[in-house]
Amino acid sequence: MAVKLEKPDQYQEFLDKFDVFLFDCDGVLWNGNEPLPGVKKTMELLRSSGKHVFFVSNNSTKSREDYKKKINAHEIEAKLEEIYPSAYSSAIYVKKVLKLPEDKKVFVLGEGGIESELDRVGVKHTGGTDASLRRAVNSDDLNNVRPDPSVGAVLCGMDRHVTYLKYCMAYQYLQDPNCAFLLTNQDSTFPTNGTFFPGSGSISYPLIFSTGRTPKVLGKPNDEMMEAIVAGVNFDRKKACFVGDRLNTDIQFAKNSGLGGSLLVLTGVSQENEFLEKDAPVVPDYYINSLGDLAKVA
Amino acid sequence: MAVKLEKPDQYQEFLDKFDVFLFDCDGVLWNGNEPLPGVKKTMELLRSSGKHVFFVSNNSTKSREDYKKKINAHEIEAKLEEIYPSAYSSAIYVKKVLKLPEDKKVFVLGEGGIESELDRVGVKHTGGTDASLRRAVNSDDLNNVRPDPSVGAVLCGMDRHVTYLKYCMAYQYLQDPNCAFLLTNQDSTFPTNGTFFPGSGSISYPLIFSTGRTPKVLGKPNDEMMEAIVAGVNFDRKKACFVGDRLNTDIQFAKNSGLGGSLLVLTGVSQENEFLEKDAPVVPDYYINSLGDLAKVA
Repeated sequence: MAVKLEKPDQYQEFLDKFDVFLFDCDGVLWNGNEPLPGVKKTMELLRSSGKHVFFVSNNSTKSREDYKKKINAHEIEAKLEEIYPSAYSSAIYVKKVLKLPEDKKVFVLGEGGIESELDRVGVKHTGGTDASLRRAVNSDDLNNVRPDPSVGAVLCGMDRHVTYLKYCMAYQYLQDPNCAFLLTNQDSTFPTNGTFFPGSGSISYPLIFSTGRTPKVLGKPNDEMMEAIVAGVNFDRKKACFVGDRLNTDIQFAKNSGLGGSLLVLTGVSQENEFLEKDAPVVPDYYINSLGDLAKVA
Repeated sequence: MAVKLEKPDQYQEFLDKFDVFLFDCDGVLWNGNEPLPGVKKTMELLRSSGKHVFFVSNNSTKSREDYKKKINAHEIEAKLEEIYPSAYSSAIYVKKVLKLPEDKKVFVLGEGGIESELDRVGVKHTGGTDASLRRAVNSDDLNNVRPDPSVGAVLCGMDRHVTYLKYCMAYQYLQDPNCAFLLTNQDSTFPTNGTFFPGSGSISYPLIFSTGRTPKVLGKPNDEMMEAIVAGVNFDRKKACFVGDRLNTDIQFAKNSGLGGSLLVLTGVSQENEFLEKDAPVVPDYYINSLGDLAKVA
């Protein structure tokens, strides 16, 4: 049964329970480019109370550096090592778990954030923001695009420049069972300018359906994201709380990774009716109208 | 239990059983642009024996006119009214079943074949081959692409010029529950130049996953395709046989539409092991190495 936080004494009791707070960003700290009221003050309160803070996002279009700029632009303090976008957890997975041999490269169906993070861990890549792939397939492609043993993995994320040519290339590479199939996250939608558009999980579906293969998903709610976080810093999971706006990614992530608590904010995707109904598949421990409310602690 | 046709007396017995033969095209009559040996002779034999012949394809990129040219280019006789591509069955469905009001239009995520067939039945459309949609999304799009009451249906087929912008537009239109969601066919792959690339069913998946809606599928194996055929010509289904290379579309279509028989040719997608194994979900009545073999009738 989810507890609604509505009063200052409830806010204080909630804050006292945890030493570490992990935040989803869009729909929690801001909405698109719009700041959410009181959030800056809440984040300052956490810092001044000695809490540890992390930023954990499934958005794969941005690197850690990009995210730092965006968070700081909202006047919220954030250090690089506190920031975990799915582009980062994906690069860590390719380097440390997949241990991609040096003579192999990753075909990226995605944007610059993924490329930056692969560069940082020293993994070669192709595809991605290569502007020469933003065109129609031609008969040469149809004759020449075939499995390529130098491609050791296809890593798929959000790609607002997706083309049929990129799908054809990724499809052919994935015909080789030794070519890993990775996905930064499976979010069906991507919140933009107060509405939604298809997300990373949707963009990758042509490859899932055409190849019949199941990708390894590296973002929330999967444990690979938590592995990437704890590889950088250690903390007691029981004293940590995840704060997010999506039941099936954020709140599920708290549960999958054994965190002590989860807080759903109602400023983003998921709404009250989705978890208050009988047999709701995912229920947060706590929920609150807006993260900014916490600053109203007595 | 599938019967393998291997000898001239079996061929004759098989031919005698049916008055009407319906053919899938790619993988049956030809492979890509390569003719398959003996097929021309088999088709001439059927015509000279007084059999009725139809061509039924899930390929949505071609109109009936386009298909006629392609079939004729392989020196196979075909009349316009014998040809049923999924672009045609889809246009018939929009016009006769959906009865789209005259002030509404169809947003096409697909190619010219669909547009031609919609034009022929007098249904207005947008999207499709519009070259101005072959570009990246911009911030104006993100602010302006929203549900549009003038769009009464999204019709999705094979689109080798798919862009994120088109997905965003279709996604927004489909937010309106009164906007119908139609799919020419759900083939996962598209045979090209002796290999496969992602097909119409794959290209449409970003919309299925992001909207959570289930599209009405208008090609094989669904009965809407047979409804489009019998709307044009009537025949005794029990005396008709479907000839194809895919178990899950062609052979399933013969079963779904109550045809008297089905023949699988082994020159295309499905292979012997897929239906000879125990508990195979779809089993053809007959199978043969190649359609051309039938011409070797005694």
